[in-house]
Parts: sequence; structure tokens; C-alpha cells
Amino acid sequence: MALINENYLKLQAGYLFPEIGRRVREFQKAHPDADVIKMGIGDVTQPLTPLVIKAFHEGVDEMSKAETFKGYGPEQGYGFLREAIAVSEYNSRGADIHPDEIFISDGSKCDTGNILEIFGQDNIIAVQDPVYPVYVDTSVMGGRTGRYLQNGYYEGLVYLPCTAENRFIPELPERKVDVIFLCYPNNPTGTTASRDELRKWVQYAQSNKAVILFDAAYEAYISDQSIPHSIYEIEGAKEVAIEFRSLSKTAGFTGTRCAYTVIPKNLMATTASGEEKPLYPLWFRRHTTKFNGVSYPVQRAAAAIYTSEGKKEVQSTVSYYMNNARIIRENLASIGFSVYGGKNSPYVWVNSGRGIKSWDLFDKLLNEANVVGTPGSGFGPSGRLFPFLFIRPARKRD
Amino acid sequence: MALINENYLKLQAGYLFPEIGRRVREFQKAHPDADVIKMGIGDVTQPLTPLVIKAFHEGVDEMSKAETFKGYGPEQGYGFLREAIAVSEYNSRGADIHPDEIFISDGSKCDTGNILEIFGQDNIIAVQDPVYPVYVDTSVMGGRTGRYLQNGYYEGLVYLPCTAENRFIPELPERKVDVIFLCYPNNPTGTTASRDELRKWVQYAQSNKAVILFDAAYEAYISDQSIPHSIYEIEGAKEVAIEFRSLSKTAGFTGTRCAYTVIPKNLMATTASGEEKPLYPLWFRRHTTKFNGVSYPVQRAAAAIYTSEGKKEVQSTVSYYMNNARIIRENLASIGFSVYGGKNSPYVWVNSGRGIKSWDLFDKLLNEANVVGTPGSGFGPSGRLFPFLFIRPARKRD
Repeated sequence: MALINENYLKLQAGYLFPEIGRRVREFQKAHPDADVIKMGIGDVTQPLTPLVIKAFHEGVDEMSKAETFKGYGPEQGYGFLREAIAVSEYNSRGADIHPDEIFISDGSKCDTGNILEIFGQDNIIAVQDPVYPVYVDTSVMGGRTGRYLQNGYYEGLVYLPCTAENRFIPELPERKVDVIFLCYPNNPTGTTASRDELRKWVQYAQSNKAVILFDAAYEAYISDQSIPHSIYEIEGAKEVAIEFRSLSKTAGFTGTRCAYTVIPKNLMATTASGEEKPLYPLWFRRHTTKFNGVSYPVQRAAAAIYTSEGKKEVQSTVSYYMNNARIIRENLASIGFSVYGGKNSPYVWVNSGRGIKSWDLFDKLLNEANVVGTPGSGFGPSGRLFPFLFIRPARKRD
Repeated sequence: MALINENYLKLQAGYLFPEIGRRVREFQKAHPDADVIKMGIGDVTQPLTPLVIKAFHEGVDEMSKAETFKGYGPEQGYGFLREAIAVSEYNSRGADIHPDEIFISDGSKCDTGNILEIFGQDNIIAVQDPVYPVYVDTSVMGGRTGRYLQNGYYEGLVYLPCTAENRFIPELPERKVDVIFLCYPNNPTGTTASRDELRKWVQYAQSNKAVILFDAAYEAYISDQSIPHSIYEIEGAKEVAIEFRSLSKTAGFTGTRCAYTVIPKNLMATTASGEEKPLYPLWFRRHTTKFNGVSYPVQRAAAAIYTSEGKKEVQSTVSYYMNNARIIRENLASIGFSVYGGKNSPYVWVNSGRGIKSWDLFDKLLNEANVVGTPGSGFGPSGRLFPFLFIRPARKRD
């Protein structure tokens, strides 16, 4: 008798996006001529840049001739891409990351979803709240939480409240935790972590032998020079942190698919009996056993963004989105909303105001401005408690 | 204190391919002019076909303009591809599979490696022996086995011996099993399953409420008209089987990456308390939470193989590999080897002869013919007990 993984039954229905879809469809039916701007999903709208397109085509051409055809590549990615990333993203910022420590993948959603597989079942996991739902849902699926509670939390997870009161910068956890998901620039609040803030977490991890899972998918949007782009800019982080990066928002790869995960070779965790073991060989084994590498032409396309011309092109797209963010941020602020983010992140987190529910603001925006946002309640209990509305300025029309 | 997943420590070192690499490097150092033909890894060598290349380029071009740019696509794949597959691969063979039941992915290795996530921990898993190592290794990683035993087996897994005596067609298991990995055309033995043979397994699954995980990655190489290409050609299979398909060997996508998994909506498994639940929503949730879809241009390229001209092109590449297989099969047989496979699969499974170890034949082949094969022992204990050598005729030079 085949048994199902009953942890899946604990998951709450993904009601948010279906409900958004229902309200938008209803509105469009009633107003067929309305030009609805969809900013709810956080997708990009700008095409791949010319150099990326050129390299992508060249990669496809190589696949058309036996002499240059590429079959199975290294599961961890081609050397040319790993080397370019190590130099451009890490070594240039003083972070001593070796190409071998970089695993190319098809998405940060996949990597942050799969990473818990190399950790034991008995770790206490901490997440920021509000939170990117993938961290929570994959913890639930993997049996690393208890049941869903009426207050919107899962038993067994440690939630780190990020509220207007603490300016969305969470305190260190009161109880000891073992694995900590940190996301900076934060999805969804748009806040960043200063060097001191990150140092605090690295020190916590060192003292508690915890591991930080650092999601830096939005690092390309950091404009403030004092904000670290990588946790490895902090001394000691290589011994306590795994970092996730994505080309989705950096270079418009949401539909092209390329990302990477960094696991330093001297990052350790322990067995139940207390023996220290490096995590690197575990992820290496997982990645080579359960993954077969990113499409070769996609890796060629990805490498183009690390050339000096490629960097300029990508920067210009980033500026386009940041200008959108600025317009939204400034205009919402000018009519009295409290607006967070939008300075080092391509989205804003809007306080809909005391007593106004985020769904009410959602309806008002849709009806009066024909703009679709995401109610903050989609990101967990603190998103619901403080009725914020998440607006991503990547303009997306039907 | 972060704990590791200690199941990974049970895994045996992947000694096989490093050892092959070592011997090949040594040989090439001693014989720098030798033209070594590498047939050990089972990769393809022929380029993508012209229509696939054309569609791939068109997909890339769409990514270059804002009007046609594609951001996040549906995680399960675009409708155009799922519909083409449903019609060409299933409906045309009388299998009533709906496009909704097809999940596009980046590889069968990923899908067969990830599928156990939706099953409970207490299932008894059966595998054919010899076996594609991914089924075993991912069972170990997921904590679904006991320790590694001296005889080469993992405690807790049920191995179904496939030997020359049973012509590599396993018997039904003696003890009750819950989840059964079946691979046809079989990797590594090259054997196929007749309609009657598959019916036997479907009936077993029905009687025991078991689920069959049917890996048909090599179905494109079936030339015998009486052999089913899909398990869904068998009545009742939709209630008991998940099927995996890949474009890797079908259309040369090993470096391009596209595959799919079929989960019928009426396939059920049970909770510990005996309640029946469909598996479809579990995989749907996993796929949409931990995966973000296959690269759009790759999906465009993949769809080209389902056009009538595309099918002809792919068939011509398949014929090329099958002609290679025929040459190897006939010549090895003519000098006295027992050769299996190579008729409905692009590789052969060679009996190196009683008393001859597969590594000795490996060395002989390398030294005298400059050909690299894979010792059968890489596929589990029965591969070791019967010293067969796996040769894949996808000619691969350095």
C-alpha cells in the first residue's frame, strides 16, 4: 500500500493568487477596456540585453553542429560561468570564493527549496516574518514543522517578526535555532541589512553552530554603497553561511532560468553525535545525483552579463526598474502612505494605514488606478497583522 | 547546532566513473596518439536537428523584444508543449492522457530523483537489479533505506534480480512492496517489457495498492511494434503508475535539458490511516513550489520535435544510433560474446564471459580497441555478480 507524504496535507491552500486572479478577472469582465497593470507577481518585463541574446544565439548555433555540440555538461555548471561569477561577484568585493564553491542551477526557488535536504530532520528552522513563502512551504513538505496553527504560524518554526516598529530588521531569536533563512534585500519588505546587522547574524551562527541560508536574489538592486551584496563580505561568514543568487531579477532571466548557490568548502555542520562534517560534499552529491546541469546555451547567455559591456547593459535595465520604483515610492509617500523599500530593492512595501485592510486597498487600487498589487497577508502573519501591500514595479500587462 | 542529513553518510563513494577516468587518463598519457572512443557515459553525439535549432533561435529572438519577451512561465510548462506531447506520445497510442497531467521539467534524473518526496517514509521500495543508480541513491538520501551491507545492497530496499537466467525480466517480488521503480527499455540491460509483462506489474500494483514509477527515457528506441512505449497503453495503468520521459536520448537534449513526468489525476495512494488521496495535487504543489519551469526557448525547441517534419528528423537521428548499436551487437556476437539489448535500446549489455571480470574486459577493450565502456558493476550487485559490460554506442570522442 503506497503511502503519501502526509506533511503535504498540513500545507495551507495557496488561496492568495487564485483570489487575486478571481478579482482581476471580474474587474476586467466589467471593464473590458481598462488597461490593467499587473504588478502582483514580481516578474520582469524588459527583454534580455543584446549581448545576452547574442551569446544565447551562439550557444544554440554550437548545438547545431557535431563538432561544437554539447551533450551532458558538468552538473555544477561550466567552468567559464563559475569562474566569471567568482571573479565578478565575489573576488571583486574581497570575498574569497572559489569557482568550485559555486553550483550553477536553474533557479533560486529550486535551490532554497531543496537545500534543507542536506540537513537533518531535527534542526530548528528560523524565518523572517513576513517571509518568502517557499522557505516555509518546503520546510512543511520536508516534515520539519508541526501542524498549522490558527494564528497563521506552523508549529516548530521560529518566526522572526519584521514590523514597522523594528523597521523590518528582526531581533536575534530568543530560543536557540540551527538553520536561519535570511533574505536581503528582503522579499517582501525591501529592507537591506547593513554590515553590522549581518555581522550580528554571523556571530550568532558562530556562537550557536547554526547555518545561515542567505538569499541575495535581489542584490543587484542595492544602490547604497555601504550595504554588502554578499554575506561573504563579512568576516567569518564562509564558515557559517550558504548564499543563493539568481539571474532572474539581475538580468531578466525569470523565463530563461539560471541561478547559483555558493557553499564554501569549510562550512561545517554536525552529526547527532557531535562530529563536524563539511556540508559541501553533501550538496555536491545531491546536485550531481538529482540535477543534470543548466541548458548549455543558457549558460552561454548567462556568462555574457559578466563581461564589461554586459555589466553596463544589465545596469541599465536595473536602473529602469529602480526608476519605476522611485516613481511609485515618491508618489505614494506624497499622498500620505508609509512606504518602505524601493531604494535598494525593485519593490515597495506600503502601509495601507491603520484600520484599512490590505484587501480593501487592493480593491481600491484595482478599481481606481487599474493597478494590481499583492496584499501583504500573502507573506505570513505579520503581513496580515500590519496590512501592508506589496507592489513590484515591474510593469506587466496582459 | 545545525545537524546534517546523516543518510548521506550511508552513500557509497561514486568510485566507478573516477576509476574509469583514471584508467583512461593513464592510457592516454602512455598512448597520446590513440583515438579513444568514449562510450561509457551514455551521452549523445549528434547535433540538435534543423527544426529544433530553428525553433530554439526563434525562442531566443522572442526574448529580445519587450513585445514578445517571456518572464515566468507556468511551472508545469507551456500549454503548447504539453498539448503536443499529450497528442503525439499518448493519445496517438490510445492512452488517454490529458495535457494537465503532464509536468514539463529539466530532466528525468531530477524527476525520478525528486518523486519520492511525495511519498511517505514508510514505503517499501523495489528496484530492478542491476539498476540506474539514481533510484537507489535518492532513496538512500531520503532516509528510505537502512545501512549499506557488505554484499552491495542497502538494507530495506527490495532488489528484483535481472539476470541472464531470467533473461533480465524480473519476477514479481516475494514480499509486498509499495513503490516500484521499473525502467523500460531497461537501463542498463537494454531489455524491453512486453504488453503481458507490463500487465503483470499493473495487476500487482492494483492488488497491492502499490505505485509504479515507470521510467521510459529510452522509449524512442523501441523498434519492435508489439512493445508498448508507455505504461498507459496497459489498461488500468492510469490508476497505478507515474511515467517519466526525457528528450535527452529521444532528441539529443542531454545538454539542452527537457523532460516530463505524467501523473494521472486518478492515481491514488493512502494516508497511514488508510484514506485514499490523489497524488496529483501533491506533485503539483511540489513542482510549483520547488521549480520554476523550463527555459522558454528550450520549450520552443522541444515542441519542434512533435511536428510531422520534426518527427522525421528525430527518427533519422535515432536510426543513426541504432545502426551503431547494430554494428556493435552483431560484431560482438560474431566473436562469441553473449550480447543483450541493442535492438530496442541504443546500448548493449555484454557478457564478458564466465570467469572474466568486467574490469578485465574494460582494460582489454581500452588497450586493444581504444574503446571505453562501463563495467556492469557500476549498476549494482547483479551487475557485479554477472560480469557484464555496458557499452553505449553514442560515439564520443574527446
